[in-house]
Amino acid sequence: MALIVHKYGGTSMGSPERIRNVAKRVAKWVRAGHQLVVVPSAMSGETNRLLGLAKELSPATSTPELLRELDMIASTGEQVSSGLLAIALQAEGVPSVSYAGWQVAIATDSSFTKARIESIDGERVRGDLAAGKVVVITGFQGVDSQGHITTLGRGGSDTSAVAVAAALHADECLIYTDVDGVYTTDPRIVPDARRLTSISFEEMLEMASLGSKVLQIRSVEFAGKYRVRLRVLSSFTPWDIDITEEAKSGTLITFEEDEKMEQAVVSGIAFNRDEAKISLMGVTDKPGIAHLILGPVAEANIDVDVIIQNVSHDGRTDFSFTVHRNDFARTMDLLKTQVVPATGATAVIGDAKICKVSIVGIGMRSHVGVASRMFSVLSQEGINIQMITTSEIKTSVVIDEKYMELAVRALHKAFDLDQPPVAA
Amino acid sequence: MALIVHKYGGTSMGSPERIRNVAKRVAKWVRAGHQLVVVPSAMSGETNRLLGLAKELSPATSTPELLRELDMIASTGEQVSSGLLAIALQAEGVPSVSYAGWQVAIATDSSFTKARIESIDGERVRGDLAAGKVVVITGFQGVDSQGHITTLGRGGSDTSAVAVAAALHADECLIYTDVDGVYTTDPRIVPDARRLTSISFEEMLEMASLGSKVLQIRSVEFAGKYRVRLRVLSSFTPWDIDITEEAKSGTLITFEEDEKMEQAVVSGIAFNRDEAKISLMGVTDKPGIAHLILGPVAEANIDVDVIIQNVSHDGRTDFSFTVHRNDFARTMDLLKTQVVPATGATAVIGDAKICKVSIVGIGMRSHVGVASRMFSVLSQEGINIQMITTSEIKTSVVIDEKYMELAVRALHKAFDLDQPPVAA
Repeated sequence: MALIVHKYGGTSMGSPERIRNVAKRVAKWVRAGHQLVVVPSAMSGETNRLLGLAKELSPATSTPELLRELDMIASTGEQVSSGLLAIALQAEGVPSVSYAGWQVAIATDSSFTKARIESIDGERVRGDLAAGKVVVITGFQGVDSQGHITTLGRGGSDTSAVAVAAALHADECLIYTDVDGVYTTDPRIVPDARRLTSISFEEMLEMASLGSKVLQIRSVEFAGKYRVRLRVLSSFTPWDIDITEEAKSGTLITFEEDEKMEQAVVSGIAFNRDEAKISLMGVTDKPGIAHLILGPVAEANIDVDVIIQNVSHDGRTDFSFTVHRNDFARTMDLLKTQVVPATGATAVIGDAKICKVSIVGIGMRSHVGVASRMFSVLSQEGINIQMITTSEIKTSVVIDEKYMELAVRALHKAFDLDQPPVAA
Repeated sequence: MALIVHKYGGTSMGSPERIRNVAKRVAKWVRAGHQLVVVPSAMSGETNRLLGLAKELSPATSTPELLRELDMIASTGEQVSSGLLAIALQAEGVPSVSYAGWQVAIATDSSFTKARIESIDGERVRGDLAAGKVVVITGFQGVDSQGHITTLGRGGSDTSAVAVAAALHADECLIYTDVDGVYTTDPRIVPDARRLTSISFEEMLEMASLGSKVLQIRSVEFAGKYRVRLRVLSSFTPWDIDITEEAKSGTLITFEEDEKMEQAVVSGIAFNRDEAKISLMGVTDKPGIAHLILGPVAEANIDVDVIIQNVSHDGRTDFSFTVHRNDFARTMDLLKTQVVPATGATAVIGDAKICKVSIVGIGMRSHVGVASRMFSVLSQEGINIQMITTSEIKTSVVIDEKYMELAVRALHKAFDLDQPPVAA
């Protein structure tokens, strides 16, 4: 007998018929002898409907008082879907009880609409599980120390599920979603892309932040921090498929290296074409220059991704960074009006037609020459590298966006990602 | 400065536009210097929508576990409307905060879907009021001692509003609804029916239980018990009508006799044509006979209204009572199969074509001859009286249903209810 947490997204909960199928799937796990906690999202479209009503009435300016009320309103979507799922389970003959976040209690800070979970009191849930019940807990929400309802932000139900799994020391947290796992890269770009049977949470973090939209990034951080075995799998398989098969499907996100069965050096190729590159040429190289350039950018609430500063010549250096393409024009203006005068830069050069391509792999820690192999592959394809950054398990390059597909496909093939992995 | 509780029904909260009008009305009261607590119902149609979803998934049998989930689901309707109203108030420049029942805390027993309020902790609300905020509290719901969400049953928001007013010692509780007050009788039957400017809560109880659907009966009991000044008034007046005029509109339900300005002996004529009459003829008159007859009826969950037993002749008596027309056939069967053999009754006679007409008035306490005046009026109209029951402030007769309109009109005129009252 294992304690398992299931999480179902809004599409899976989208209608009474679909909720009934979720109940049948959960009942199958119960009949196989497991204890189950289920964290559902709101029925698809419901959160947007509720926030749409609120928007029609909202004042012009957003205040903490307004955000608090938005959370009161938006949190009801999960309360309804949780109650419905408990009823559907009861109809399947499975004893079940649903709880809102405040009832269990999922304690958060007071950052309305983007709260962070601080603790979960699992006692009540453990009591119900011991009594043979399936416990349904609303995703997406919690309660602050003042008893105000909070929500965790879009996609927060993933984090709720992982946090609940951590608090209960669950054996595994299964995230049922509309994709069947994590792929070596986007199959729309590389038809040979393979589903990974497992990936380390560190790799998953790098993949997620680079654009793989499978899981809310915070849930992966949580899983890593609290060592929760996390599996992403499809909610579109028939509910009555063999449970042994279902339990091995999707992609397992592991926190222990030795648990990882695939020993490929590189696990996946991520890419992002939402960025733009900006370079300040010939800035005076003196202490504090990075802050002098990026301080005003940060103050304008513009996120900076890649940052490069190379060694200087004759007391002057070139300073480059990337921002989201939507912030490109605003950043260029800001630099020209505020930063150039302060830094003595000779020119500001911007380019929105770039992309970032990354290889991600925990094996890079122990294998030398992986980055240079990447550069060599791109060179063979005649692709010029404009910027390079590296971390322990990731190497990213900025290149002309027109080469993106070519680069991703060439790297995918060069690192054998189209081949089934060799068992360790 | 007064502390006022407003309650708005589902129709008044039916759309963002209507919620905005409620906010404007509340803001008008705030600007006149009052402290406001507002208790809204769910947006019209929402509770039915939610329970409809639940019904699609519900198991065949109703259990406490199922009812608990129905309350989880149904309670969200008021949480949404309360949050929306708080936002609309903020947009009007009025600081506001909304609370679900559990947050304030409206403590109830654990009778899911028909819970009763046990206490309200007004401390949090008083703090917010003192800080200049309008406090919006969800109607219809509370929380039991185990932290489960409960609901109070249909129309429960009236009771919530009165209970909140009682807990806060509010100066008045205004129930905004789709009628503009309590009438001397149904204007569809008597076009001359007048709106009462005030009515005692005891009269209101008798009127309500006899079919006036203005207020949930329990809210009136609550108002009487805790001496809450309660006013029923229209939510369809323009929000910007003069506040002095609005404060005097509708019908005030008073708990102090000397507060009642109208000194009419009879305040209203109530009627009910949903009943059927059943008589057991010639039952042996011995101790326990009433229980012998009505025990099996009660066990079958059939509500009995009027009960008449006259003096006996030769050790035998006739025993009559009324039930809801829907229960008529079932009751007749029950009597014939179970009760007649046990009581030695010579016959069972049923009649579903009857109605009950009542005069209600607190003045009946101190005026003699009111009942006999009623009988005289009916006699003059040639209406035969089949049954009579009286209480301290009400006299009811059962008559042939075809005379109902005639009886109501004749009584309405005979007791001068079509005339403006004489000031005390």
